[in-house]
Amino acid sequence: RAMNYGKEQVAVYRTYATPLEGVRTIPESDFDGRENTLFGLDVRVQVEGEEFLPSFSEGDNSMVVATDSMKNFILHHAGEYDGATLEGFLEYVGSRFLDTYDQMEAVTVSADEIPFDERPVPAEDSEGFEASDLVFGVSDDESGYGEIALERDGDDTAITGQTSGVTDLEFVKVSGSSFTDYVQDEYTTLPEREDRTLYISLDVFWTYDDATDALGDDPERYVPAEQVRDIAGVVFDEYDSNSIQDLIYRIGLRVLERYPQLESVSFEANNRTWIEVRDDPEGDATVLREPARPTGFQQFSMDRGDLEGE
Amino acid sequence: RAMNYGKEQVAVYRTYATPLEGVRTIPESDFDGRENTLFGLDVRVQVEGEEFLPSFSEGDNSMVVATDSMKNFILHHAGEYDGATLEGFLEYVGSRFLDTYDQMEAVTVSADEIPFDERPVPAEDSEGFEASDLVFGVSDDESGYGEIALERDGDDTAITGQTSGVTDLEFVKVSGSSFTDYVQDEYTTLPEREDRTLYISLDVFWTYDDATDALGDDPERYVPAEQVRDIAGVVFDEYDSNSIQDLIYRIGLRVLERYPQLESVSFEANNRTWIEVRDDPEGDATVLREPARPTGFQQFSMDRGDLEGE
Amino acid sequence: RAMNYGKEQVAVYRTYATPLEGVRTIPESDFDGRENTLFGLDVRVQVEGEEFLPSFSEGDNSMVVATDSMKNFILHHAGEYDGATLEGFLEYVGSRFLDTYDQMEAVTVSADEIPFDERPVPAEDSEGFEASDLVFGVSDDESGYGEIALERDGDDTAITGQTSGVTDLEFVKVSGSSFTDYVQDEYTTLPEREDRTLYISLDVFWTYDDATDALGDDPERYVPAEQVRDIAGVVFDEYDSNSIQDLIYRIGLRVLERYPQLESVSFEANNRTWIEVRDDPEGDATVLREPARPTGFQQFSMDRGDLEGE
Amino acid sequence: RAMNYGKEQVAVYRTYATPLEGVRTIPESDFDGRENTLFGLDVRVQVEGEEFLPSFSEGDNSMVVATDSMKNFILHHAGEYDGATLEGFLEYVGSRFLDTYDQMEAVTVSADEIPFDERPVPAEDSEGFEASDLVFGVSDDESGYGEIALERDGDDTAITGQTSGVTDLEFVKVSGSSFTDYVQDEYTTLPEREDRTLYISLDVFWTYDDATDALGDDPERYVPAEQVRDIAGVVFDEYDSNSIQDLIYRIGLRVLERYPQLESVSFEANNRTWIEVRDDPEGDATVLREPARPTGFQQFSMDRGDLEGE
Repeated sequence: RAMNYGKEQVAVYRTYATPLEGVRTIPESDFDGRENTLFGLDVRVQVEGEEFLPSFSEGDNSMVVATDSMKNFILHHAGEYDGATLEGFLEYVGSRFLDTYDQMEAVTVSADEIPFDERPVPAEDSEGFEASDLVFGVSDDESGYGEIALERDGDDTAITGQTSGVTDLEFVKVSGSSFTDYVQDEYTTLPEREDRTLYISLDVFWTYDDATDALGDDPERYVPAEQVRDIAGVVFDEYDSNSIQDLIYRIGLRVLERYPQLESVSFEANNRTWIEVRDDPEGDATVLREPARPTGFQQFSMDRGDLEGE
Repeated sequence: RAMNYGKEQVAVYRTYATPLEGVRTIPESDFDGRENTLFGLDVRVQVEGEEFLPSFSEGDNSMVVATDSMKNFILHHAGEYDGATLEGFLEYVGSRFLDTYDQMEAVTVSADEIPFDERPVPAEDSEGFEASDLVFGVSDDESGYGEIALERDGDDTAITGQTSGVTDLEFVKVSGSSFTDYVQDEYTTLPEREDRTLYISLDVFWTYDDATDALGDDPERYVPAEQVRDIAGVVFDEYDSNSIQDLIYRIGLRVLERYPQLESVSFEANNRTWIEVRDDPEGDATVLREPARPTGFQQFSMDRGDLEGE
Repeated sequence: RAMNYGKEQVAVYRTYATPLEGVRTIPESDFDGRENTLFGLDVRVQVEGEEFLPSFSEGDNSMVVATDSMKNFILHHAGEYDGATLEGFLEYVGSRFLDTYDQMEAVTVSADEIPFDERPVPAEDSEGFEASDLVFGVSDDESGYGEIALERDGDDTAITGQTSGVTDLEFVKVSGSSFTDYVQDEYTTLPEREDRTLYISLDVFWTYDDATDALGDDPERYVPAEQVRDIAGVVFDEYDSNSIQDLIYRIGLRVLERYPQLESVSFEANNRTWIEVRDDPEGDATVLREPARPTGFQQFSMDRGDLEGE
Repeated sequence: RAMNYGKEQVAVYRTYATPLEGVRTIPESDFDGRENTLFGLDVRVQVEGEEFLPSFSEGDNSMVVATDSMKNFILHHAGEYDGATLEGFLEYVGSRFLDTYDQMEAVTVSADEIPFDERPVPAEDSEGFEASDLVFGVSDDESGYGEIALERDGDDTAITGQTSGVTDLEFVKVSGSSFTDYVQDEYTTLPEREDRTLYISLDVFWTYDDATDALGDDPERYVPAEQVRDIAGVVFDEYDSNSIQDLIYRIGLRVLERYPQLESVSFEANNRTWIEVRDDPEGDATVLREPARPTGFQQFSMDRGDLEGE
């Protein structure tokens, strides 16, 4: 049966965490690390174990770790973690839960990164600007994601699940996207478009062949969310797609190509494309409006077999 | 592999739908039907089929039903449906998708009810008030939920999954709830409480032994979301719980007891309990404030085996 | 110059507050009081005074009451308040601020009610149901509103502003509303409708001739938000309107007629009317969808002069 | 009396609008213009005039321009506008409303910019990266704001109000902010902090001596929202403040100093500072959590008199 409990929306902030250094660069991105002066996560922890059944069936709390204590546990260990990645912290704190509480048989810890932007300030030693090392913008845009599932394995713990990701990407391409040749029938009112302004929101997730590569201990084998975001932007820029399906397939191939250490990549896409109301202003100018609420979505996963097929 | 696409947030409103009549009443609720003068749903449809692969891998849209057309399809069939339940409409429109489009092998249709409240107006024939048959309040409170999964089965369609539910219940009980005797250790700062003001939000889901009972064709075997909501409220009122775990177990037993046609009931609960800041005003009066964002959750499923154990 | 500061989103809950009793009833509503077993407010306080200028211009905090202390002040006084109304509490806590802190020259306190719904449970002494005195639903629907502005007046305080209201009303009328004969020109694409399903959201505000009537000390002169809500629903039910403008004018006349103690009533309305996609199903049934995001609004105030004009 | 109506949340997108060029640079920012390949606004229009009274009091729609037509009007004129600024478009479309509809005596048009971020792609002619001219990120962060009020003035129109701004700035400074020496009394529980991690959200608004400078026809006299954002970030970085009041005063002085064409600058600030839970990890590292919901705010306006006082 489903039986678990836990704590969600535990926002935890750590200043001066270990910098992420030594990641490999790729042609699509200049991201090669981050300072981690501010390291923010919105954490969810979920625990399981047969010894929790009496708390449901008999109102017996003797095995129950209060979810408020779980929050304190997470906050405390944010000060102990000496790594540089979201996934590394999740594995660290999840393992500590299993070490500390015998009644927990399995723990799943996930988090959304709370992202911070660099703020340019006048450079001290030159004419231009440099990133402030004190002031940061708090971003509401895309963010990294991770989930690590752990089980007790004798005296040790084993990673039984791993997902990494970048979520809430929102990209619009002004020109170069078509949507034509789809099924035409009595329910079809959408006009075909040889060239539409395509607006997608996108979550990208990936799994590693070896889940420990997700922790970042070997930064050369770590896949940063920032680089996957940049791959998505560059492929969108380069490739004139016939549909969102077509576009995400191309992004997936590029991700699998760049990172041989990955087992799979998957997508959740939403179509938020605006509706053209004027194409007659001078030059290429158009006027567009927002669609009504209904939005199309696509869910798709790929693995190395797709890459070989190309 | 995961491969599907579809349309979500399709709000559809039907006036003068078929009334729901003939449901069995239970001791915890006076709900025995609804007029369905306004029948509103927020629908999501997801389709699958191997013939969609070329739309991803080759940009070939020839099998693609545009999600805009899916929206039109749902809106059209809302005018054809002659039943009285959310689940019945989902099965109806899902079956029509499979009938209409050969390339769809499986369809999952789900919806949140968009609930409307009765508005009292002076009665025509008496001193008091009666429900208006024209004006309704649009409610932002709890609502019914349903999900029906269908697969092509030769020339016919088969229901391969069914979930019904009521979501976003929010109940607070002023007195009679305790939380004590949980694990005390270095991470524990929450004080034990013999009598706390307990505030929960709750989603309840159920499955039937025979999924067709969910459609409402035989109203005697249909479980209305309104009755399950009322069971939750009544059990909360009657039972002094030691924890949310303890409470939802009692609610689950009552639901399984009332509806022998159900196979299982499950819960997703959140703890939103306020923090007491004063207990010294006169009488039983207290002052409480909102907690910080982190919230505890519980997920739990039960079946008839739990009922027999009692 | 504008110069103020304060605290907002201070949610405060009081159990077993003084019941509201003795309010006059009106033909449009059966509301005649409430128990106030749960009394919840989302409070905002804003303070002004010339002595705060150095905190801005010189970084001198010596006159600054920390906004965290303001929150504590509000929570504390929620336990001291012995009245029964939202506006009464606002006036009480605002006066205490001026009494306590000499540097505050003026204080404005406002709040949204956090509404709770009764939950029916089997009656103890009869066959039917009665409202639980322990369990309440937490409502996300319409709620009361109040704002009281106070100024120091020698050793005393004076009310310099008062607004009461009910906000987030959402009503839909299935039939009996038209919108025709408006300006037709090159920008007009909206079809005229003799009979549309009209969906409005509505905030209603009112001021008293004598602001102290808003406090509820004399319940006969107090205007409860629940009654104004019911007037809006009943007038909507009774009156076939040509526009939202037309409708709110009729509601305003009725409010001014029922409550001679009011000076004015004002409205902020939004048009959320759905778009009809089918009118051909049998009988009066129609199918409608949600409009795109742009929504029309109306703002309008009325006083007793409008009533005399009728 | 208050009497107006209109349309809000009209999202309008224009591709290939006129670039903004020729703005003066300032030491705090490298912003010197934008391409306007995508120009997005969320527009609100509000109209007034005595001739609208019968639509309220008599249900007479003959003077009513449907708000749906207003939306069409705005969308149409987005294709006609040949300027490069948000405020310029607002003045353009507002004037067209007054020109077109005699019954409108005054029009207020406001908008939030819908901001787009550049996406780096591999440069065509060099080793590095350049901004894509086709793909843009849709930003949920800070955005420009403008409001222009217009009245009929004989055969012409006159600007009767102008506000420009940048809203939803969110900045956090890791170190260098104190909050001490405030009022200590029985309601004070907040500990004094010599060095806190200060997190503010901030809206900044400004008015020009000559409102036509806001339109951008003379780009040398136009104040871009991006530069004001950068001033706020740089002053926050440079200046160790004793409070948010202290900080926004310094930002205001800098804005007034940089732009002699401005009459006033005003602020709406919110304190979202996290709560420190550990300061004992090695080095300067700390762990912080989110505060409960109540948040402090400050509202403050300044003019050139404040500048002279320095």
